[in-house]
Amino acid sequence: MVEERRTRLTPDERRAQLVALGVAALAHSPLEDVTMELLSEQAGVSRALLFHYFGSKQGMHHAIVLTARDSMLRATEPRPELAPLDRLRDTLDRVVGFVREHPATFYSLVRGAASGSPEVRELVEEARNAQAERAVSVFLELGEPDSRRLRIALRAWVAMAEQEMVDAALATDLPAAEIVGLLIAAAEATAGAASPIRH
Amino acid sequence: MVEERRTRLTPDERRAQLVALGVAALAHSPLEDVTMELLSEQAGVSRALLFHYFGSKQGMHHAIVLTARDSMLRATEPRPELAPLDRLRDTLDRVVGFVREHPATFYSLVRGAASGSPEVRELVEEARNAQAERAVSVFLELGEPDSRRLRIALRAWVAMAEQEMVDAALATDLPAAEIVGLLIAAAEATAGAASPIRH
Repeated sequence: MVEERRTRLTPDERRAQLVALGVAALAHSPLEDVTMELLSEQAGVSRALLFHYFGSKQGMHHAIVLTARDSMLRATEPRPELAPLDRLRDTLDRVVGFVREHPATFYSLVRGAASGSPEVRELVEEARNAQAERAVSVFLELGEPDSRRLRIALRAWVAMAEQEMVDAALATDLPAAEIVGLLIAAAEATAGAASPIRH
Repeated sequence: MVEERRTRLTPDERRAQLVALGVAALAHSPLEDVTMELLSEQAGVSRALLFHYFGSKQGMHHAIVLTARDSMLRATEPRPELAPLDRLRDTLDRVVGFVREHPATFYSLVRGAASGSPEVRELVEEARNAQAERAVSVFLELGEPDSRRLRIALRAWVAMAEQEMVDAALATDLPAAEIVGLLIAAAEATAGAASPIRH
């Protein structure tokens, strides 16, 4: 029966299914433990098929982390119709929601950051830069002048947000509004301190 | 001549010398590339001697990261005679100085955080917790009530500080006072937002 359903999947669907299994496996295991052997057992497919889709274990990790990254970035896309700070608050609120609903996807990104492969680490770095860029636009719209200091401050703030997702969104039931409040206060203050106007 | 000097080292001195070489190697290479082979070549000692001192590659990484961690924590020990916020500012200022003077030591910690070995990662986690604890005491002394929120906020702020060390202390010549200013503003704001008094 499983066999019958499986044959109805297109190659793209089969690949997506394998990636989804990989994402789920990363919720519980470090990257190095999510091997082709493991995925081949869990998916009930041959290792040859996995090699066909991903080329190597690192290719497989790349596909998993890329999928995780893109679904996180899409789910937390800023709403342009909101005023700048409300937009940042709303984005963070959806990050907390996403992390709580899809812990495996979020863990895939956290694991990817510690990957031995520079290509996999780069995917996570791109996600962090994209989130930092979203925060930078908010403060530019609020009238902060663009500066290296502002960009350094907000990229570092993204690291803070990420840690807070691990420690608060995942490990506690702290209301999303409180988690977001801690982060908004830090973003405003560090962006303010970066401003040459107040220096 | 080199041989002659080497024989004068005590076992502890020899071990410390090997660890120091390992710390230096980590400035340029990820943890997995700092192998016993590499260190044995660089130190001009046999692999058997390295095995004698460290037991395994992971034992060697543990010794390297432990040394890096302790020297960083010692060099940035808070000065109890300073008022709380001045003390935090002074600690951060010495963190920036330490990172700039000992980039290899700092990199050893950054690399250790991505280690495949839970024991090595734990060493770095302990350093982060120690820095978070230093920040928590500052805000408790300033009258903030102790809370899970305050601790989450300041642990996340340590992640921010760490990223800022990589992006600003190491990658730019931004004056230490400016880097510290960005971080102090964020710490005060997030600790303030964590306070139930203002909620």
